[in-house]
Amino acid sequence: MGSVKSVLDKRCTIRKYSNQVVADDLLNDLLESAARTSTCGNMQLYSVVVTRDASVREQLAPSHFNQPASQAPVLVTFCADYNRFNKWCLQNKAVPGYDNFESFMSALVDTVALAQTFSLLAEENGLGICYLGTTTYNPKEIAQTLKLPKMVVPVVTLSLGYPDEQPALTDRIPLKGWVHSDVYHDYTEQDIDDIYSYKNDIPENKEFLKINNKETLAQIFTDIRYTKKDGDFFSEKLIAFIKEQGFLK
Amino acid sequence: MGSVKSVLDKRCTIRKYSNQVVADDLLNDLLESAARTSTCGNMQLYSVVVTRDASVREQLAPSHFNQPASQAPVLVTFCADYNRFNKWCLQNKAVPGYDNFESFMSALVDTVALAQTFSLLAEENGLGICYLGTTTYNPKEIAQTLKLPKMVVPVVTLSLGYPDEQPALTDRIPLKGWVHSDVYHDYTEQDIDDIYSYKNDIPENKEFLKINNKETLAQIFTDIRYTKKDGDFFSEKLIAFIKEQGFLK
Repeated sequence: MGSVKSVLDKRCTIRKYSNQVVADDLLNDLLESAARTSTCGNMQLYSVVVTRDASVREQLAPSHFNQPASQAPVLVTFCADYNRFNKWCLQNKAVPGYDNFESFMSALVDTVALAQTFSLLAEENGLGICYLGTTTYNPKEIAQTLKLPKMVVPVVTLSLGYPDEQPALTDRIPLKGWVHSDVYHDYTEQDIDDIYSYKNDIPENKEFLKINNKETLAQIFTDIRYTKKDGDFFSEKLIAFIKEQGFLK
Repeated sequence: MGSVKSVLDKRCTIRKYSNQVVADDLLNDLLESAARTSTCGNMQLYSVVVTRDASVREQLAPSHFNQPASQAPVLVTFCADYNRFNKWCLQNKAVPGYDNFESFMSALVDTVALAQTFSLLAEENGLGICYLGTTTYNPKEIAQTLKLPKMVVPVVTLSLGYPDEQPALTDRIPLKGWVHSDVYHDYTEQDIDDIYSYKNDIPENKEFLKINNKETLAQIFTDIRYTKKDGDFFSEKLIAFIKEQGFLK
C-alpha cells in the first residue's frame, strides 16, 4: 500500500532481477487494474504480450541488443493494436478506416499510458521494471518473434521481476526547466546553463567523461549513446515497419 | 492518500469542472513528482505547458473542437521536446542528430508516460482529468497558440479541474481479450464475439444505436465517431506538422 506519490518518490529503474517468481495471479490483477487507464473512445487500442517462456525470451533478447534488463524473468510487450478492433468492425457490418497515421497515434497514446499505469502498479507491489526503448529500434524482429499480425506494432517493452539491486535515485532537471506557464517560453543560453549545469557536478557523469575521453556530457549523448547515424538508420526501419503494418501509405 | 490501485478502481474521465481553483503549489508538486517517471536515457524529452490564462484557453478551445472538457480551468499540454536538449548539446560542443522519426518516438513515449503519471497523481488528489485526443488532430494550431518552437510537438492535452460530475465507471473488455501469453494469439471470429458481445447489452449503447439510426455499435465508430475520411485528413495534417517541426524528412 502507498500513495501514487510515495511509489514515485522512491522508484528507480531496475535492470537486475532475483529468481523470485512473479505470480500469474498478481500479474493479471495488475493488468486488470491498469486497464482502468483512459483509452481513446473506449476502444482499448492495445494488446499486451506477457512473455515468460525462456525460449521466446531468448529470441527477443537480441532485438533488445541483449541489454541486461532483457534477461528479466518476464518481458511485457505493449503493442498498439487495431487488428482486434478491425475484426470486430468487420464482423459487425462496419467498414474500419484505421489504416492511417492518426489512428496509429491514438493507439500509441493508449498503449504508452497503459504501460505507464502498469509500471506504477508493479512498483507499488515490490516489482521492478525497465523500459526497453529498443522496442522501436527492432519492431519487425520483435513482431516476428511474437507473431504480431498486421495493424499491430510493438511500442514499449517493460522488463519485469523482483529487484536484485537498489540503484540510487537518478537526477532530474528542475521543474522550471520543463514546465511553462500559459505558453511556451523559449530558452535563452543562460536558461539552458541554469537548467543543466548541475549535471556536470555529478560524480558519475564526471566518470563517464573520463572513461569515454569526451570533453562534455552532451557529447556522450550525441557521439556515443544516441548518435545521428543510429537515429537515421532506425528511423528508416521503424517507418518501413509502420507502413508494412498498415498505418502509413 | 490511496494506493495506485484504489485510484484506478474508482477513476473516471471528468469533462465538467467546478469553479474551485487548482492551487499552483499543488500543481507544481504533482508535476515535480510526475518527473520521477522513467525517461529515455534520462533526457526528459518533454515540456509541459500549463495554461490557466482565459484568453489563451479560449484560443485553444477551437483546436479541441470546443469539446466540453476543453472548457476546464486548466489545460495541460504535454509536448515531445528536443528543442531544449538540442540547445544544451549545441552549447556544449556537441552536434545533436535528433531530426528523425526514431527520436520523435522516444520523446513521444517519454511524454505520454509523464502525462499518465501526472493524471494518476491528479486523480489521487481529488482532481479530474480528460485526455483531449484532438491534440494530434490540430497540432499546428495548438503549436501556434502555445508558441511552440521547432522540435516541439504537442502530443497529449489533459483538461484539469475539480470534478463537477460523477460519471459511472466505463466498461472494459475482459482481460483475456487483450493479454496474450508468450506470443500473440490471433483472434477467431468466436473470440471476437466473446470479447465484445457484452457491449451490445449496455443500455447506453442501445440508446446510441437508436439515436444514430445504426444497426451495430461498430458502425457508430466507423461511420460517426472515427471515420476513415477524418482519419485520412488528420493524418496528412499530423505528418506534415511532424515534418515541419523537424522530425521527418
